[in-house]
Parts: sequence; structure tokens; C-alpha cells
Amino acid sequence: MLMTDMKKEELEALLESTKKEYDGYKALGLALNMARGKPAADQLSLTKDMLDAVSSSSDCKAADGTDCRNYGVLDGIKETKKIFCDMLGVNDEELIVGGNSSLNLMYDTIARNYIFGVDKESTPWKDQGKLKWLCPAPGYDRHFAITERFGFELVTIPMKADGPDMDMIEKLVSEDESIKGIWCVPMYANPTGITYSDEVVKRFAALKPKAKDFRIFWDNAYCVHHLTDTPDKLLNILDECKAAGNEDMVYIFASTSKVSFAGAGVAVMAASKNNTDYVKYHMTIQTIGFDKINQLRHAKYFKDYEGVKAHMKKHAAIIAPKFEAVIKALDENIKPLGIGSYNTPRGGYFISFDTLDGCAKRVVSLCKEAGVVMTGAGATFPYGRDPKDSNIRIAPTLPPIAELEQAMKVFICAVKIASAEKLLG
Amino acid sequence: MLMTDMKKEELEALLESTKKEYDGYKALGLALNMARGKPAADQLSLTKDMLDAVSSSSDCKAADGTDCRNYGVLDGIKETKKIFCDMLGVNDEELIVGGNSSLNLMYDTIARNYIFGVDKESTPWKDQGKLKWLCPAPGYDRHFAITERFGFELVTIPMKADGPDMDMIEKLVSEDESIKGIWCVPMYANPTGITYSDEVVKRFAALKPKAKDFRIFWDNAYCVHHLTDTPDKLLNILDECKAAGNEDMVYIFASTSKVSFAGAGVAVMAASKNNTDYVKYHMTIQTIGFDKINQLRHAKYFKDYEGVKAHMKKHAAIIAPKFEAVIKALDENIKPLGIGSYNTPRGGYFISFDTLDGCAKRVVSLCKEAGVVMTGAGATFPYGRDPKDSNIRIAPTLPPIAELEQAMKVFICAVKIASAEKLLG
Repeated sequence: MLMTDMKKEELEALLESTKKEYDGYKALGLALNMARGKPAADQLSLTKDMLDAVSSSSDCKAADGTDCRNYGVLDGIKETKKIFCDMLGVNDEELIVGGNSSLNLMYDTIARNYIFGVDKESTPWKDQGKLKWLCPAPGYDRHFAITERFGFELVTIPMKADGPDMDMIEKLVSEDESIKGIWCVPMYANPTGITYSDEVVKRFAALKPKAKDFRIFWDNAYCVHHLTDTPDKLLNILDECKAAGNEDMVYIFASTSKVSFAGAGVAVMAASKNNTDYVKYHMTIQTIGFDKINQLRHAKYFKDYEGVKAHMKKHAAIIAPKFEAVIKALDENIKPLGIGSYNTPRGGYFISFDTLDGCAKRVVSLCKEAGVVMTGAGATFPYGRDPKDSNIRIAPTLPPIAELEQAMKVFICAVKIASAEKLLG
Repeated sequence: MLMTDMKKEELEALLESTKKEYDGYKALGLALNMARGKPAADQLSLTKDMLDAVSSSSDCKAADGTDCRNYGVLDGIKETKKIFCDMLGVNDEELIVGGNSSLNLMYDTIARNYIFGVDKESTPWKDQGKLKWLCPAPGYDRHFAITERFGFELVTIPMKADGPDMDMIEKLVSEDESIKGIWCVPMYANPTGITYSDEVVKRFAALKPKAKDFRIFWDNAYCVHHLTDTPDKLLNILDECKAAGNEDMVYIFASTSKVSFAGAGVAVMAASKNNTDYVKYHMTIQTIGFDKINQLRHAKYFKDYEGVKAHMKKHAAIIAPKFEAVIKALDENIKPLGIGSYNTPRGGYFISFDTLDGCAKRVVSLCKEAGVVMTGAGATFPYGRDPKDSNIRIAPTLPPIAELEQAMKVFICAVKIASAEKLLG
């Protein structure tokens, strides 16, 4: 029976029994975490042999003879670049290998454009007055945090089943020169799990922004992070941009943070040659080069893109059951009551859950009181403010499955309590 | 006999015979490099066992239980921090471990202050009009390149035997609010090899800059890079700044780039708690964290600061003879002719050579023609312009000693030719 159809007495009875169950969990002194998209220990162990791929018996030479232990090679060794080129569908001169963090590459790209402009001719963003940034939401809090820190006004763009609201984006960017960019997680989006449709990608590529220095930040963080044997497919945004005569409009980012090691992977950015040339023009002032031994370690271990794809199946084998456990718990306990909607992602790291309006903060707070840490309610929206107070990001990968099931019992109680409280007014 | 005392005929004879020798070298088709301060392959091999310090059989846990393979820990794991704290004489909260590049930490520190100001209250450097930066010269070209790129007017400060000209610095910073900082390599300076005297350090710490947001960039790149058993000693600038009530005025940088691996070391910055708190306030937006597996690798291999010091003796054993070979060649061939002055460094990576005025470019060009690559003449000065065209940075570490001796023969010929040409007018 839907909770919205319940009479007052029925709601009160449900609230009371749920509170009793909740108090029981509270008494257990739980310390569970579904807050961040962190790989579990057994996922990290999948690549333990990578740590032997470069050892005391290695000559540490790249295929072209470069001694990876010494200075040099700003944009990465060829064999590591090749893996990412194949992954992202770009060529060698369109790709730059960075350090361990794609977020850092994104931050630096914002900073570079802010200080120096998007190319040698453009006015730096810092000198163009108050600027705006488009933020499809729910989205990734750390994206929003970067552009907020740089003083952009964050404009929320609703997320739909096939991507952000393109009608709104097309209208805004064609009219408003102060809009300089947009954050996108185009595949298995954080947190909604959807992959942008071909139409959405083509409409992105064909944008006619009023601002010539408008840039799409295409964070393809989950491009190989499938949970099923029938992966989603994403169009190649750079190809589409080229076809539309917009090849300088997009920066693509990716990393092995959730492929090899979350703290010690390899991050990359890809873009048109114009853009990568410009990035390198500034990057060569910023650093002598990134960690090539770690690049070599990755190349020797994975060998090629096929090796990465094969490896990702091992991740899926570990985390797909966790996603299933969450979905099962929601299907059995939330769906019949009609007090929440959620996606069933085919990849990525998150399940996006929407409570009845106005309940998300209360749910997260109830979870916390019972020892279950969730991502803060609102975190998936610009400025941390969810206008409907309904979205909660569930990150199921880190806890062992038994803990996850326990945490979901607490979460379900919390949703039921918050919903009943709301409906009772 | 000093070349300056030679008669025209003597000079012409010397020029002719030297040209003959030079042409002989040219015919050899040499490809030698004394340009960059890169460690030699045998130096890099000294730490090859570090590559086994974290392996497939490791649990990758830091001492406090942190799984170094996963996200988290913005400022570095404790045991790695401890090594650098002991090295630099600072405490845990005054130190931040970064990625592989201290230059990148310096660039980011400039960028941060430029965009956001040196603290939450100060006006960003970008909003203060045309600004200036002090550059002790000869100095490090990559330092100068950063502040040049950010649009600072670079002001050359002469280098003396005990550090930069402090009279000039004191006067300039006390009078000119547009001066926002200074680059320093205080120990075994790049390229002059000198270590700042206690008096110089104390005068730095006691500066009374007109600009409250003036900052000393103290690049202690060579703090453990001794070439002798009686190392130079450098006063602790942060302690001195604290004593002078100026604790927020300095940022210290260091790395293991020339301790472990030049491409894959660990870089750090140190500063007052006020400063490190502020850096972390921005850094947490820029990245989730740096490569902790590499931090762990370093901590497990070196164990402690004593381990680093012991290791550096092995480097000295390899490179001290190279420095000696250069000095010997200069002592035997240049000194008697009085056509150049140079230092005999007790540490670091460079020998600074001054030709007769107006000869440096010609020397470097002659070397290049004969297959010996030197650092570009002028590179050690702001904007690459050496007002006297006399300074050449010799980097003796990379070539094997036989190649180095060969390269020095070419270099000596080049100095003799350029000097004779100059004296002949």
C-alpha cells in the first residue's frame, strides 16, 4: 500500500513500529559508511600485482628508451598514452597524462583559463566580470566546489533520463556571454547513473555559445566502469565537436582512480590539438613532468586498453552484487510504499535516491544518529542546496556486503520515518 | 700567462691553435649534454630497491592504518611527513606532502596567492595592478619563468658570496608595496653553489616589507645534497621568521627529486600553521589527495631522516668526482689564462662559470656547434637576459665522467676562442 494512501492511524502505526526497529539498530552502535565513492579493499587488491610491474629488476625504460626515473616527457610516455587514447578515442597529440588526480587536472584547467584565458588570444575569465557556470544537478559536489571557489555563479540545470536539459542549455549559452562552461559526467553520471544519449552528445557538440570561450568539461570518470555485460555506449564528444566545427569547445577527463588505485592512479585530459598545445604551453611552466614510473607501472600491468576492459570485469564482479543488494532492499521496502524513487545504474559508483520532497535532510540525519554516514543531503546540488530537499546519493562500493545490507536497513527505516513524519504533517 | 696580458700575435696564435683543436672535436660528431641538473643513471639506480618497498605482498597500510591505495589524507601520511619535518626542522602541522614536483607546488602557491590572496583577508595579487618580484641572479630559470608568466616585473638582485644583496632587498621591500616576493635557493644555490650565511637568513627573517603579503619562496632543493663530509649549514628560516614575528612570510619547498627519482619523487612545502591551513583550505578543492603509495614507498625505504642522509653520501660518491673533474679542467686550463671565474661548490648540482664580459653566448654557441649542449647563456637571469653576457651554468651530473671530460675539453676550447676573439676585438 502506498504510504500516501494511508490513513492517519495507519501512518502512526507504521511510524511507531519503524521507530522501534530504528532504535534497535541505533542500540547496535553501528559505524557504517555509504558516503563516498571509494573502492573497497578487495577492489584495490585486484591490482596488487601492478606494484610488481616495476621493481628493482626493471630497467624503468619506456618503449622509446626514456628512463622513467629521470626528468622529462611533459605529456606522458607513449605506451600509457596509447591506453588512454584507445579508451577515449583520441590520438596521441590530443592527450596529456597528468598526475594521480583528474580533479586536479580539472581544477588546473579552470585556473589556467581564469588566469590566462582559454587560448593566447582570449581575455582571461578573471577579467570578464561576474561569470556563470552550468551545473547539471544532481551532480558531483567536487565539480561544483571548484567553480564556486573561483567565484562563478552556479546555474542549476535539471538532469533528465538521457542527460541534462538540452533545451535549457542551448537557450542559456546562446544568449548569455557570461556563461563560460558546464560540468558533465556523461557516462554513468554521478549520481544519477545515466549515460548521455547520442542526441544529447550531438546537441552538446553543436552548441552555439555566445561566449567564444565557453568550454564543456566532460568528466568521463566512469567510461570503463560497467556493471553489466551490455555496457552503455557513449558517443565520442571530440569527434562530434569536430564534425560540428566546435573542436576546441570540449575538455575530456578520465583516470584510473577506480581502475587501479584510488590514491595512486593515473589521470589524463584530452582535447583538440589547439587545446592540448595551449595546456602544454602553460604546463611546462608549472612542472617538469609527472610521475612516469607510475605511468610505466600502469602500462606494463594493463598492456593495452583490452587489458583495462578485462580488468574492469573483475571490479564489476565485486561491486555489482552491492548495487543489487541496495536495489533489492529498495524494491522490497520502499517501492511498495511509494516514498522514494531511484535509478538502477548499469555502471558507475552511485545510486541516486529521491525522497518525498523535504525529507532528504531528515533521512541523512536519522542515518547519522544510527551510525550510518551518507553523503550530506544537498551535496549533489550547487551550493549544497537541493531546492526540493529530496536527493540522496548512495555510494554502495566501500562497505562489505553484510555491512551494506545492515546500513540499508537503517536507511530504509530513516526514509520511512521521515516520510511518515512529513505525511502526518 | 694571463690572456689579457698577451700581445696581439700571441692571441692570434692561441686562437689559431685552439681553433684547430676545436675543429678536431667537432669532427668527432659528439653528442654531450651539460645543460640540465639531471641525476645520472647510476644515481637513479641507487634507489632501485625502493621499487620493491611496496609490492604485491604489502598491505599498503600507513603506520596509522590508512590504506594508501584509497582516497584520502590531503597533506600526506605521517611517516613520510616525519622524514621531511626532520629534514626541514618543522612540525607535522607545518608540512604538506604534495605530488612529485616541488616546482608544481611553487607554481600552485603563486597561482593561489594570485587568484585568492595570501590569506582569506588579503587582496589577491591579480587585483593589485602591476606587481614586481625579486630574482637573485644568477638563479634558477624555472623560478623566473613562473613569475614572468604571471606577469610580475622581474627585478634582478645581485648574488654575493653569502647570499643575495640584502642591502638592496631590505631597501626595495621596505619602500615598494608592489614587490610581492622573492625566489631563493638558500643552500648550494642554483647555480652559484653558495649557502646563505646566518646573517643573510636572519636579515631575510627580519625583513619589514611594505607589502603585508610579501612572501619568501625558500626553495631548499639541495638541503641534503652535500658533496663533502663537512656540509654547509643553513639556519632554519621558519624559526628565524617566528623569532622576528614574521612567521607567515616564508614558504619552504623541498623534494626527493634528486634523492630518489627525478620523475617520481615526493615534494613538500612547509610554512607556518596559518599558511598551511590556508593552503589546505584551497588544496582540498583542487585535489582529493596526492599519491600515498609513493609516499609509503619512500617512508618504507628511507625509514627516517638519518636514512636519507646516509643515502645522500652514495650520491656524493658518484657526483663529487664529476664536480672535481670540471674544476680540475678549469683550474688547469682557464685559471692560468684569467679568462673565467667559477665557484667550487660544496653541494648542489651546478658550477657557475663567468666568462669575460660579452662571451657567454658565443661560448654556448661554439659548444653547441661541436655537439656539447650547455644551458642557454642568459638562462640564469630574469627574462633570459644576462646584462654582462658572462654567466654559464655547468651541470656536471648527467654525463659519465669520460664524456664529461670530453665535454669540458670542448667547453675550454670554446672559452679560449670566445675570449681571444673578444680581446682581439
